[in-house]
Formats: sequence, C-alpha cells, structure tokens
Amino acid sequence: MMTLRSQPPWSDSPIDELAAFSDSPAPSVTRVLYTDKDVLGRRYVKTQMELAGLSVREDAVGNIFGRWDGVEPELAAVATGSHIDAIPYSGKYDGVIGVLGAIEAIRVPKRSGFKPRRSLEVILFTSEEPTRFGIGSLGSRLLAGSEDLANSLKTTTDIQNISFLDAARSAGYSKNEDDLSSVFLKKGTYSSFVELHIEQGPILEDEGISIGIVTAIAAPASLTVEFEGNGGHAGAVLMPNRNDAGLAASELALAVERHVLDSGSIDTVGTVGILELHPGAINSIPSKSHLEIDTRDIDEERRNKVVEKIHQSAIKITKTRGVKLSDFHVINQDPPALSDEAIIKAVETATKELNLTSKLMISRAYHDSLFMARLSPMGMIFIPCYKGYSHKPEEFATIQDMSNGVKVLTLTLAKLSSH
Amino acid sequence: MMTLRSQPPWSDSPIDELAAFSDSPAPSVTRVLYTDKDVLGRRYVKTQMELAGLSVREDAVGNIFGRWDGVEPELAAVATGSHIDAIPYSGKYDGVIGVLGAIEAIRVPKRSGFKPRRSLEVILFTSEEPTRFGIGSLGSRLLAGSEDLANSLKTTTDIQNISFLDAARSAGYSKNEDDLSSVFLKKGTYSSFVELHIEQGPILEDEGISIGIVTAIAAPASLTVEFEGNGGHAGAVLMPNRNDAGLAASELALAVERHVLDSGSIDTVGTVGILELHPGAINSIPSKSHLEIDTRDIDEERRNKVVEKIHQSAIKITKTRGVKLSDFHVINQDPPALSDEAIIKAVETATKELNLTSKLMISRAYHDSLFMARLSPMGMIFIPCYKGYSHKPEEFATIQDMSNGVKVLTLTLAKLSSH
Repeated sequence: MMTLRSQPPWSDSPIDELAAFSDSPAPSVTRVLYTDKDVLGRRYVKTQMELAGLSVREDAVGNIFGRWDGVEPELAAVATGSHIDAIPYSGKYDGVIGVLGAIEAIRVPKRSGFKPRRSLEVILFTSEEPTRFGIGSLGSRLLAGSEDLANSLKTTTDIQNISFLDAARSAGYSKNEDDLSSVFLKKGTYSSFVELHIEQGPILEDEGISIGIVTAIAAPASLTVEFEGNGGHAGAVLMPNRNDAGLAASELALAVERHVLDSGSIDTVGTVGILELHPGAINSIPSKSHLEIDTRDIDEERRNKVVEKIHQSAIKITKTRGVKLSDFHVINQDPPALSDEAIIKAVETATKELNLTSKLMISRAYHDSLFMARLSPMGMIFIPCYKGYSHKPEEFATIQDMSNGVKVLTLTLAKLSSH
Repeated sequence: MMTLRSQPPWSDSPIDELAAFSDSPAPSVTRVLYTDKDVLGRRYVKTQMELAGLSVREDAVGNIFGRWDGVEPELAAVATGSHIDAIPYSGKYDGVIGVLGAIEAIRVPKRSGFKPRRSLEVILFTSEEPTRFGIGSLGSRLLAGSEDLANSLKTTTDIQNISFLDAARSAGYSKNEDDLSSVFLKKGTYSSFVELHIEQGPILEDEGISIGIVTAIAAPASLTVEFEGNGGHAGAVLMPNRNDAGLAASELALAVERHVLDSGSIDTVGTVGILELHPGAINSIPSKSHLEIDTRDIDEERRNKVVEKIHQSAIKITKTRGVKLSDFHVINQDPPALSDEAIIKAVETATKELNLTSKLMISRAYHDSLFMARLSPMGMIFIPCYKGYSHKPEEFATIQDMSNGVKVLTLTLAKLSSH
C-alpha cells in the first residue's frame, strides 16, 4: 500500500481560479456548455492536467482525459472525474471538486514517487448539466455508447436555434465529423470508475460525518411540456372565453408537486425548474406555455408512476381549460445505478486508514457516474457541503472537507489501481 | 356640414407598410418603445402626416402631433389619435388604425376643400403598451399632467437596466432635459378628443354591427409580485425541505383567476401575463419568481377588492410555503373614464348619416383616451375585428370596417370642429 508522505496541498485557490470563468457575477457561477467561459474553463483544466504530468486527450464532444501510465499500461485503467459546467447562477464546487480534486489526488502520489500498476485517468465530462441542450450527462452518456443520443445530437438545437454540432465546432470540437459514435468507449476500457463530489444534501453536515460512500444513484426523468391556447387581450377577452396556457402550466406545476407527495416516499422528488409564458406581456393572455420537469426516485417504478400521473394531469388540464397539449416529451427516464461492492469496500478501507468517519448513503442527485456504471464498476465519494446547498451561489465546502475527500480518493485510486 | 365627396381611399397597404417595422416575423408585430423598429415606425408616421399637409411637432417623450390649422386657430383644437407600439408577437391593427386612420380622416376632407373652424390634431401617443417600462399609456398620462410619472421616469429602468431617459435619448427624444413636465398639456388645450380603435372583443362581429360607440373605459390595475425561496438542487433537496418560489407563483396565478371569478360579475377580468422563474434550469428549484398581473373592471371598487384579495393570497402563500414576498407593488390602479355626452351624440349622428349600424358599448381594454379624458371631453369609435382577437398575430379588421371607421371619424371631427 502507498503511504501518504505529505498532506495534499489542497486549497480553494484553484477552485476560485476556475470560478472566475463565469457569465454571472461572483459568488455565483454560470458556465454553460461550449460558451467562451466554458472553453476558458476547459483550457484551465487541461493546463492543470499538464502541470500534473498527465497526457491529455480530447474526444469529439470535448470529454477531456488526463492519463498517467501505470506499470502495466496494457491493463484497463482506473478512472475518476466529474464536470465543470455550471447551471446559471449556481456555485463553484458542484462537479469542480471531482475534476480538480482528481488531478490533485494523482499529483500528490506521483510527486511522492508512487507508481500505480494500472494506468490512472482523470476525466472532465462534457455537459453534465442539461442547461443548453436539455440533456444531462451528455458526455458520459455518449462514452457509455448511447446510439440514440449520438443520432439525436445531429439535429439538436439550443433555444437560440444554434445546433449542437455548430456549438461544438465553435468550441473547437467535432471538427470534421457529424458522427459522434467515435466518442463511445468499449466496455472494459476502465477496470473501475470513482467520482468525488459534494453531497448536495444536508446529511453529512447535519450528522458531522466526513465522508459519504454512495451505494446507489437515484433515477432521474426529465420531461418537457407545452400547452397552447388562444391568447388575446388581457382586458378585452372575458373570463369564460379564455383558454389560458399560463394557468394550464401553473396547474400542472402544482399537480407535479401533488403527485410527488402522493408517492408516499420521502425519496420521491419532483421540480418544475422552467416555466415560460408566451408572449410574456402583462396585458396579454398567455397563448403558449413551456415547462421543464425533473422527477427522481431511488425506486424506478415509483418514479415512472409519477411521470405517468403527470401525463394524465396534463391531458386532464387540456380538457378543463380547453388548451392543446402541443408537446409532452420524456427527454430521459434513466434507471438507477448501484455502486460496485469492491469499490465501496476500497473507499471504506481508505476512510478507516485515514481515521475519518463515513456513512453509506444514496445519491439523490445524478452524476456522470450513473452512466459510467454502464461501462465499468462504479463508486462515488461524497463530502459535506454547507446546509446541503447546491445549484446556487451559497454552495460551499470547507478546505478540511475537500482535503479529506481528496485523501480518500487518493488512497482509493491507489488500491483500485494495484489490483 | 361637410359632405364626403369621395370614398376614403383606405386600403390596408399603409398598415402593412407600418407592420414591416417589426422585431418578429410577419404576420406578428413586435414594436417596443424606443427600439430601432419603433423609431422607424415613428418616422413613417411623421412622413404620412407631412404628406397629408399637417405640421408636425414632437414632445420630450416622443408624443407626435400633426396639426391642421382651422379657420380660428386660436380656439382649442379637436384632437384624435392612438399609438403604434406593439407588444411582442402581437398584431398590426391595435392602435395603428387610430393613427393612420386619423391621418386619413383629415387628408380626405382637406383634399376636398373643407376647412374646419377649430384646428384638428392627430396625436401619436408614446408607449400605450407597458412592455418596456411597465407603464401603460405613458405618453397620454404625461400629457394629462402626471407629476408622479414625470418624477418616477427619472429613475425608471427596463429589464436590461437601461434607463428610461437613456432609451428616450437613443430614440432622439428628451435630449437636454431630465424634467419631463414640459410634456404636460394645459386643460383646455383640446375642446374634445376622439380615438378610433378596433374593438379587441367579439361583440360587434358577433352581432353584425359596424360601429361601437364607447360610453366608458374599464379601470385597469397592474401589479408586480416577487417571491423568494431558498432554491437548491432538484434532486438533492427533499420535498419537506423546500420553499419553492415557482410553486408560490403558480398558486398565486390560480388565485388571481379564482378571485376574479368570485367577483360575480362578467366585467371583472384578471390575467397573469408574465411569470418568470429564477434561475430557470430544469434541475434547479426556483429560488425567485416574478409575476406581472393585470386586472380590470368597469366598477372601480370591485376591481380594487380583487387587488386586495390578490395581496391577501400572496401573503397567505408566504406562510404556507415558507417563501418571502420580496415585492408586491401596485404599478397603477386607475379610475374608469366616462365618454362625453356631446361626443357620443356626434358619433351617433355621423353613424346615422352614413347609414351604418351602431351600438353603445364599454371598452374593456384601456386606451390613451382613458387619460386624455383628464384633459378634455373624450369619446371613442370602435370597429369590429376578427373573432375579437387582439394582442396576437391573428388580429384582423376588414378594409370595409376600417373604411367605415374612418368615415365616421371624419364626420365626427367635422362636427366637433365646427362648434
């Protein structure tokens, strides 16, 4: 076993440096796929990988791989990583500590003279957040070989009608190819995958525990819904003659909450994060509305039942309000993923060796690990974050907790790479 | 009395020409205050005024006046006019026929040799629509001497933080002045004011009647409301720990509808035309929401009761959902206006002389006439529009109906200017 000769010189300064590439003012971070700020963030990470002595490779959608060749480079590598894209007005830790922390987790033993048996790879995944093209974990889904996604991306556009491929090209990717199947990795490319992440929930902080060891990742589903009515003048059209697409949307938003609460399980969640009205004028009855709905559960069947109930409510609303359901689209409805027993064991052992408290737990947020689990055995390491806040500027993790997470990741990678 | 020597050569071609100045594709029109398209539209109208032989004057906020001096130019003039600004994705008739139709209504008798006793003025009012700065009938409110508005406009900004004064300057107005009281007109400037407009409701078309003679304009109130919650990650924050500002907004939107229906009168209407969520990401619980609410009635007290109930509901929602009511602001809460009996009579007589059917009716939409009524006796002439549609691209009036409206306006102006 490798011994840690030095404290990882972890500080939040690289995190602050990366957070500076943002389209919204600090402390918030907005770094959306393939924007200038995303490209600058990627360049920063590649530089950090190179400074750590890793050899850098990028694929057609901008997944970035930093490799440290092991003693037996022909063996399947051990991989770790996360994402750096950030939804509008979010924080600087989500994803980022799984990328910068992974570089740190390799840099320290590398400097200390350790040489792994298996090669180690740090991965920066493209677009874990669904902000721009509506698809979460785009990079890891493609790595895991999603033919459907590779095909649909040929015609996917963002809200400003910029195609995925044009956006990728503007960021320097997918130069001469429309076929994204080059991104797919073979099963067996990695012997294991581990992701370090903030918990994005309050449990570890509340219970004063240093490390969360993830046993399963909850199953997310995403929907888009559109209603259409006749619109009209807010003064002139009397109430009985209206079919207000905005009120239809409000009703559906409240129905989502009701169906989620009716599931009877604390593990069911549902959110209407986007609700847009057209034309969006104070004196105009909304003629169109657009909703984007996220619902998750650790129980796939129970979550699918919520999706079905949302659909039924949308149909019912069309009848009571005389609106048209012009779109009801399930963007994704993924199965949950279970962590690998051997990886759970490796993380547990690492935690004990470092005299840190730990707890087995469920990840309610999804991560690239959910899709990497299709390619290789998977595990995740959580650290506490302030009040469980995430996806907002108040997101925060202490230097001590980040340092603990990096140490546990370092030891875990050492263990996994030695087998 | 003047006789109409020729059919007004009304066609929809000037309407189509003006509609071409739009920030959205035809048949929709988007022409927002002080944008390039608004400036082009204003230039078009000024040219039309000049071609009709009117002398053109503009005030500090861009109200445009085209004057035809009468035989006794020292007398108070008779005024007519409307607006050309258009909310996003609306139609090409709202306001426009009251401007271009008024020019036509003067051009025809002028060409035929008629000379009015009182001077006639065509007015293009600035920003009847509240789109950009949240204030409807901005131009006519100022003409009517609103000190409050003149003061508040010094610090008013649009959603992109552009100040009203900077916007006005970019359009060539308010060049060297911050004080907008120069816009105020004295009571008695006009002996009467008449506005030609599409009905924006279905009654005239349904009943096959050519001309609506407005007896009163319903009283509008506009509110902005903002809720604030904690936001957070859509997967990680469990339902009992949420205070979702988006669901608070949806509840309030449905409460607006309920309070309006509870008024017991068909004349009460209420609309949530704007509902915005922050940060607006599918996997983020809304931390802020912003609503803009419009409610109107021909009974001021009944409408004020609806406003009060909306306020009560907003407060109740803060308690049940644990959100903060960070803003509840009544933008305006205007009294209704009654048409002048002599003007109603003049329009009725004109209609009879032209062998057109007519009907006394209420204007449920507000118009610049609501504020011109503070300056002078006021009246309005309505023509039918397709299915009562307004504020959307399907807005339409037939050439016959527009021609009828212009003829009635021509005769009415002749009558009013002769006394």
